[in-house]
Amino acid sequence: MSQSLEEILDSLKAIKGVHGAALIEKFGLIKGSALPGWVDPEAVAAMVTLILKASQRATKELEQGEFNNAIIESGKGKILFSEIEGNVLCIIATTDAKLGIINLKLSAAVDAIKQFL
Amino acid sequence: MSQSLEEILDSLKAIKGVHGAALIEKFGLIKGSALPGWVDPEAVAAMVTLILKASQRATKELEQGEFNNAIIESGKGKILFSEIEGNVLCIIATTDAKLGIINLKLSAAVDAIKQFL
Repeated sequence: MSQSLEEILDSLKAIKGVHGAALIEKFGLIKGSALPGWVDPEAVAAMVTLILKASQRATKELEQGEFNNAIIESGKGKILFSEIEGNVLCIIATTDAKLGIINLKLSAAVDAIKQFL
Repeated sequence: MSQSLEEILDSLKAIKGVHGAALIEKFGLIKGSALPGWVDPEAVAAMVTLILKASQRATKELEQGEFNNAIIESGKGKILFSEIEGNVLCIIATTDAKLGIINLKLSAAVDAIKQFL
């Protein structure tokens, strides 16, 4: 009795302060998403591509090793990016969402998502 | 008796686990840097540009507001980006650098840097 990918993403979306989540393959393909209607999954995929490009420069030229995760914090929200075996799990949250709670649920979600990869 | 921009960046570089720091104007111009010899300031500027592009998409399409800061964590290090009045202060650190200490010195540096902008 394991969850579907959509159920896992929905469980992340259910966290207080989280607008939604999406799983994006490293070249920008959307593998799954649980996003509110006003968020275009393609915009999320485009951001993942830009973050991975920035990270690739860091890997090559700044000897930073392979990408693990990233956070962008803005005036009205924050976006979390986590690497899962060549994919990136992206979580869109409000500024007051608790990172501790998100990270706890995130690590469980990452383990569950690995079944699908 | 105020510090020069280079002195402020040098003081960030002196933090344990920090390789170096650079101040990049939002269109990629390098305003100042205290980086080790193996880090190309242009590579840092390119990363800042990519992060800001990702953030701009988040601002426009995901209603995230203006960019504040970002962190990219990789296998062998982490990079911090902080917005200062249209510029981005970038800090390159090892994985075991303490974020609490960096953030403390960072906020003092941000206040000091504002004099030059």
